[in-house]
Amino acid sequence: MKYQEIAKDMASKINNGFYTDRLPSEADLMEKYATSRNTIRNALDALYNQGVIKRVQGSGCFVNRPLHGRKNVINMANKVGFKALGDNFSLKSRVLKLEVIPAGEEISRYLGCSEEDLVYRVQRLRFNEDEVFSLEDAYYLKSIVPYLFKEACEQSIFKFIEEAYEIDIRSGDEYISVHELTQAEAQASESNVGQAVMSIEEVNYLKNDIAFNYSRTYYFRKGFTAYFHIGNYLC
Amino acid sequence: MKYQEIAKDMASKINNGFYTDRLPSEADLMEKYATSRNTIRNALDALYNQGVIKRVQGSGCFVNRPLHGRKNVINMANKVGFKALGDNFSLKSRVLKLEVIPAGEEISRYLGCSEEDLVYRVQRLRFNEDEVFSLEDAYYLKSIVPYLFKEACEQSIFKFIEEAYEIDIRSGDEYISVHELTQAEAQASESNVGQAVMSIEEVNYLKNDIAFNYSRTYYFRKGFTAYFHIGNYLC
Repeated sequence: MKYQEIAKDMASKINNGFYTDRLPSEADLMEKYATSRNTIRNALDALYNQGVIKRVQGSGCFVNRPLHGRKNVINMANKVGFKALGDNFSLKSRVLKLEVIPAGEEISRYLGCSEEDLVYRVQRLRFNEDEVFSLEDAYYLKSIVPYLFKEACEQSIFKFIEEAYEIDIRSGDEYISVHELTQAEAQASESNVGQAVMSIEEVNYLKNDIAFNYSRTYYFRKGFTAYFHIGNYLC
Repeated sequence: MKYQEIAKDMASKINNGFYTDRLPSEADLMEKYATSRNTIRNALDALYNQGVIKRVQGSGCFVNRPLHGRKNVINMANKVGFKALGDNFSLKSRVLKLEVIPAGEEISRYLGCSEEDLVYRVQRLRFNEDEVFSLEDAYYLKSIVPYLFKEACEQSIFKFIEEAYEIDIRSGDEYISVHELTQAEAQASESNVGQAVMSIEEVNYLKNDIAFNYSRTYYFRKGFTAYFHIGNYLC
């Protein structure tokens, strides 16, 4: 197993509440994953760099508790935190728009493609129980994601394209700002015009640094908090 | 020179507009910094991981343009972007509160100290020209930052404590949410009660992972956008 896979597996175990405090020792993890100390260390480094775990000198690695157990905190690098939003937290999606259009001026700049290149545009509203969680507008380069359909867009689109097209989604640029809902957005999300919501714009890249997705998501959940860990300050 | 220092120097050159597009080749940088290829590669990796530069296969490294030149975008890992906010952009600070208090229940949880441990509390309003830029409430562990005074708080506090106490500020946890101003906050910032602003809470750590600072900053600038690069998705 590669260290990235081990890191993903451990992040998912933390997300699902299998590990809640102290992690097994390096020796235990080596045995469990049948791998070398070096691979385990690389996996722990990856988890540490993304703020999933903390190190305490002399006593090992612990699950990182963002702001000490506050709710509504999601680690944007690995989505750890969703489980804490509620028992069996899940999102349902209502697809509002699914079309193929030319990228146009704005989107082509974000994706580094030409204005005529075709993109899938997917707009969807996501719910938790009956509460509106987010409104999403996403653009996928058709040359990389050749086919999208409604049923796939009702689930995790990233999971679908990773599996269907064997795409390795590697990195992302995240832009966070405060947005006031326009009339159309308020109508689509059953909210009020001018209501302030958190906006997260993302450009996502494959492992060769080619952009394939630009999206803008508004988060409606009260107190929703995006968490990032910064590993090595350069300022 | 260590690779971190080279990375900081290059980030500052980008921030100041000395490099604007393509960076010098590895060979040129080796000569310029009189160091090995390995050190240069580590510096470029650090800049890449924080979203300061992009790599283009076959043509080298380029300055990363967050959302393609949009204004008001600040890279939270290294503060690249402030220069783009305006010619000779600068912040002036008005210190509203400077006191030594026991950490208390909430702050002690964020800093991992005891409730009786003393902290400096600094509240300040920051201006660009005559426009309110941010309102900041910060708590510094007195055991690590033994003395703070008004003149130091009118400048960059981090720069002051790094220099005065030879502290190496290494990493941070960042929590971003939308906040509606309370009456007291609106009054302090000459704004409106209920106005929605971006809130960034930070816990900052020394290189041994000891927390020394918790702060909560509200950003008033219209369209202010916090940027983060995520290097290796784990989800």
